[in-house]
Amino acid sequence: MIAEIYISLKKSISDPQGLTVKHALESLGYKGLADVRIGKLVKIKLNSKDKKTAEEEIDGMCKKLLANPIIEDYYFKLKEE
Amino acid sequence: MIAEIYISLKKSISDPQGLTVKHALESLGYKGLADVRIGKLVKIKLNSKDKKTAEEEIDGMCKKLLANPIIEDYYFKLKEE
Repeated sequence: MIAEIYISLKKSISDPQGLTVKHALESLGYKGLADVRIGKLVKIKLNSKDKKTAEEEIDGMCKKLLANPIIEDYYFKLKEE
Repeated sequence: MIAEIYISLKKSISDPQGLTVKHALESLGYKGLADVRIGKLVKIKLNSKDKKTAEEEIDGMCKKLLANPIIEDYYFKLKEE
């Protein structure tokens, strides 16, 4: 089973990395960018076959290590290989 | 219009950051992890309303700045706000 975890900064948190990328894109000639935000994408391949157990495990991993719930939001999708 | 861009290392490229996260998760007691890979998630809010133009722009941004096509794969989704 493969879990894809999407982690992004909360809307209220400023994102200097995103701002730098926005400026870089503008200097390449791209106009009309309202906002750029950078997040993380974590792909975990699990040996587990049980979807419910996997969901609980992945949620625990996000809370304990992968995301910082104070400043980041996350969601994840599980799919069969 | 919002573009969500998912960038991940190609399968043939080793991912030391992912390996470190895998070890960290294992030391927290999570067993049965076959693989962990870390990628980037870029969210761009565009003023443009035209989907086709937006698609071409985003693809250009990925090729020129956001992704490194030699070692990374990317795909993106466009959605209305």
